Amino acid sequence: MSHTVETIRHSAAHVMAEAVLRLYPGTKFGIGPAIEDGFYYDFQLPTPIQPEDLPAIEKEMRRIIASGAEFVRSEVSKEEAKKRFADQPFKLELIEGLEEGSISLYEQGGFVDLCRGPHVANTREIKPDAFKLRAVAGAYWRGDEKRPMLTRIYAYCFASKAELEAHLKMLEEAEKRDNRRLGKELDLFSIHEEAGPGLIYWHPKGGRFRVELEKWWRDEHYANGYDILFTPHIGKSWLWETSGHLGFYKEGMYAPMEIDEDKYYIKPMNCPFHIMIYNNSTHSYRDLPLRWAELGTVYRYERAGSLHGLMRVRGFTQDDAHIICTPEQIEDEIAEVLRFSLHMHKTLGFKDIKAYLATRPAGDGAVGAPEMWATALESLRKAVAKEGLSYEIDEGGGAFYGPKIDLKVKDAIGREWQLTTIQFDFNEPERFDMTYVDSDGQKKRPYMVHRALLGSIERFFGVYLEHTAGAFPVWLCPEQVAVIPVGEAFVEYAKTVTATLKAAGLRVKAMLSDERMNAKIRDAQHQKIPYMLVVGQKEMDEGTVSIRYRDGRQANGVKLEDFRAMALEKVATKSLEA
Amino acid sequence: MSHTVETIRHSAAHVMAEAVLRLYPGTKFGIGPAIEDGFYYDFQLPTPIQPEDLPAIEKEMRRIIASGAEFVRSEVSKEEAKKRFADQPFKLELIEGLEEGSISLYEQGGFVDLCRGPHVANTREIKPDAFKLRAVAGAYWRGDEKRPMLTRIYAYCFASKAELEAHLKMLEEAEKRDNRRLGKELDLFSIHEEAGPGLIYWHPKGGRFRVELEKWWRDEHYANGYDILFTPHIGKSWLWETSGHLGFYKEGMYAPMEIDEDKYYIKPMNCPFHIMIYNNSTHSYRDLPLRWAELGTVYRYERAGSLHGLMRVRGFTQDDAHIICTPEQIEDEIAEVLRFSLHMHKTLGFKDIKAYLATRPAGDGAVGAPEMWATALESLRKAVAKEGLSYEIDEGGGAFYGPKIDLKVKDAIGREWQLTTIQFDFNEPERFDMTYVDSDGQKKRPYMVHRALLGSIERFFGVYLEHTAGAFPVWLCPEQVAVIPVGEAFVEYAKTVTATLKAAGLRVKAMLSDERMNAKIRDAQHQKIPYMLVVGQKEMDEGTVSIRYRDGRQANGVKLEDFRAMALEKVATKSLEA
Repeated sequence: MSHTVETIRHSAAHVMAEAVLRLYPGTKFGIGPAIEDGFYYDFQLPTPIQPEDLPAIEKEMRRIIASGAEFVRSEVSKEEAKKRFADQPFKLELIEGLEEGSISLYEQGGFVDLCRGPHVANTREIKPDAFKLRAVAGAYWRGDEKRPMLTRIYAYCFASKAELEAHLKMLEEAEKRDNRRLGKELDLFSIHEEAGPGLIYWHPKGGRFRVELEKWWRDEHYANGYDILFTPHIGKSWLWETSGHLGFYKEGMYAPMEIDEDKYYIKPMNCPFHIMIYNNSTHSYRDLPLRWAELGTVYRYERAGSLHGLMRVRGFTQDDAHIICTPEQIEDEIAEVLRFSLHMHKTLGFKDIKAYLATRPAGDGAVGAPEMWATALESLRKAVAKEGLSYEIDEGGGAFYGPKIDLKVKDAIGREWQLTTIQFDFNEPERFDMTYVDSDGQKKRPYMVHRALLGSIERFFGVYLEHTAGAFPVWLCPEQVAVIPVGEAFVEYAKTVTATLKAAGLRVKAMLSDERMNAKIRDAQHQKIPYMLVVGQKEMDEGTVSIRYRDGRQANGVKLEDFRAMALEKVATKSLEA
Repeated sequence: MSHTVETIRHSAAHVMAEAVLRLYPGTKFGIGPAIEDGFYYDFQLPTPIQPEDLPAIEKEMRRIIASGAEFVRSEVSKEEAKKRFADQPFKLELIEGLEEGSISLYEQGGFVDLCRGPHVANTREIKPDAFKLRAVAGAYWRGDEKRPMLTRIYAYCFASKAELEAHLKMLEEAEKRDNRRLGKELDLFSIHEEAGPGLIYWHPKGGRFRVELEKWWRDEHYANGYDILFTPHIGKSWLWETSGHLGFYKEGMYAPMEIDEDKYYIKPMNCPFHIMIYNNSTHSYRDLPLRWAELGTVYRYERAGSLHGLMRVRGFTQDDAHIICTPEQIEDEIAEVLRFSLHMHKTLGFKDIKAYLATRPAGDGAVGAPEMWATALESLRKAVAKEGLSYEIDEGGGAFYGPKIDLKVKDAIGREWQLTTIQFDFNEPERFDMTYVDSDGQKKRPYMVHRALLGSIERFFGVYLEHTAGAFPVWLCPEQVAVIPVGEAFVEYAKTVTATLKAAGLRVKAMLSDERMNAKIRDAQHQKIPYMLVVGQKEMDEGTVSIRYRDGRQANGVKLEDFRAMALEKVATKSLEA
């Protein structure tokens, strides 16, 4: 019988619990769920354990698996369950919370656990080489720091050895690509805890990436019917009271600054500022739709412990836009935003993109008439269908102020990252009393949609750094060409090559120091420079260059003008391949 | 005898005082200095006066001038002076503050004033048609709001009628060009007091100007050997204590935000962040000079009353850079910054540029060894000389941390605006312990120079708006071309023209509504669009356009491709003329 990988993982957790009990008699058990790439189990152990103890537990697990024990389910009364777990205080507490008639146990080889199941039929169905104990960590019982600290053992677990190996390889690759690591190695950015955690300092090379990315972003937005705004980073409490953020988003906001007896807040979002511009003049239906974009830097309070490189920060630049339109225009506008998003992601080289639609949350908290939600959701569905995107529905997962689509892209090592969000807002147009004059002369309420395509420039940089392992497409490379003379006699020719390519607009690093050539090549490779041009006697005589590509390919004796034309074409077409 | 205009102005102030005393017996006198474009005098009047009362005072002044009274100087003792001004409490207070032996009086036609002089010899030397009373305002005695409120009468005053008229014309022109007025008329930006005074909201058309300006700014900086950084807008108090800003600049800073029990300040300057990046790694003398630029948005506290449109704001984006170099490099670097600044200003069309050098302030407050000040000042002098700039020395006018050059440009109606500042900093390299390793292996302290070329994007936008009266060079125009069909039958052709020009990258506004053609032309003229293309039967048949230029010129039957090529060339060359 074939089981889902979650069933296998959860069964393996029981096997681990049995192994731990054998090795550490007297252990008390917490819970042991399946998780994304394996499982964990929380124990109260009679003696502390270390990572060095994990192999012995693995060995014991394999012994249990090999024994071919059956998983046997039984249903028991609450009374009976309490008796069976009389010496297991955490299980007793769990039993207390269960309804009579819903309590089931699973037993394998004499080890019994309180469990809803399902499980595999026999321990042999767990592949002994498809799991690996990963780490030991502390975890409070029920996540409550006033309750006892238990020992959590994490494991990777898959249906097959091949899958486990692929996952471990992916993790190893991810470790090499970690944005914090590459950020240092390529000298792209830094973070300075002493001046404030979660704040990104973009170094010259990171800045160059950002300048090129933002230039493209602006060009594309203008070409696709957007205007670009610039708005302040701070606003008085009046603004945030009106928008409602001080009501429903205060924990995400920084503390206020007191100026002239007013409280000012640094912005966590750009929307109220765009609305101030909208409300600065009257609008006719003829002026709509408006598509107003801004690279707006916002600050949001996140717990210091949750900050993580470029991926989770406190200050970030949203590639934000607000679309303000009539109800008649909303369907086309949503389709257009989605088309535009996919166009942007494809230019960047993301091919595997999935949509997640979140609908109206249950209860009375949601704002906006149900028919507006229905119209909005319908326009989201149609847009997704039109683009032939696969999608999942997150029933009730919308914010209280409107439904949304999130887009997740798959990166080069198979991980999904959310970048785009397209989000209806039924709240702020009401709160700010936004209106337009329709063809019938009546004042009406426009629809407003927030959207960010890349999400934020900082996080996108992190994702892209990990996706490409720092080997950016040529057009985004801080340094595109390294020129390396084979010896001092060719420094002049190297300078000519450099000047020629720079004049054509390429970003060229002339490596003219007296270091050895091989050290320079290693350095340029390490910096992921797409083209290394090695020049010596032959090249100087012929007016050529010998190209070493970042991916290991080589081409000798290429005419300088041919190289220049080729490199410029890669830049102009935003080619993904060097 | 020829007098300076200041002497004439000050003499006219005495004449005004005499006229006021004749018309308002019992008036008490404050002070009456010459100012930039005239003079004022502060009075305590027996009855309040209104602007309507000014012509009568002017008439009385002309009578006094025509009388040909001599200005007669006399020197008196303190005792004697007090006797003469026994009924003038403000003068008595002034006399109290004077040294015995330094007190002089000036008398004309029986009116005596306490005055150091100099004055014209005869009232007839004041041209009766070269002055004009301007306004009545309240002013506290000695600027102290606890002292009596006096009535200040302002006047324009020049050496000749022609100069007065030119000045009045300039003021009228300035009024029409006022950035606040043009900002509204051209829908470029807005300010929203209720969300925070002094904060600029850039509308789509203002945003377009800014995007184009910043794109050029970045291109020029890269082409001139700069790198571009991006740094956070907030930093912990540690950063500002280290930099010294909390010591010497606190009144200019916004109040702190409290986060995780730390105080964070929104940045008034970018320098400490750039230094954090510098100090993030070690530097060899081979890496220097570093030229690090940032369009960094800063926030500075200014009294709400002093804010003024785009010219004086609380939040602004400095076009900042820091140059970090060895002492041997400083002279070349300063020359290069100055050359680059002038290149930028000339591209923008400023021809008349003057330098102001500020030297070491007196006293012990200044930091940095005197020889560093001498080297720095010498490099500033040499750079100015090399560029053949005229300059003034502001002796002792430098900041405590280093000497500087400011550049002022003259605008189209003759006003001077300070844009560029180039500023040595001997303070922060010490405070942050910045070092580089020199060729001798020793750690040394680099020189650091702050510089902003345009000053800030916001203020520059204000200056440029007033300089051009909103008629920007084509490359900076939010809208470059308006296409106007003479009737409905030509809408399709107008669309073709629009599409052709848009495809070439021009910013085109198709004016296709059913409004009358003349109304559209007026609207496009009002919006200062450089090219209005009118298309009708003849144009459609011939594939041409009829051009109406912003300045009134016209050209009919121009081949569409010729117009396109001409417009693209104006953009590409950053031509100042449309």
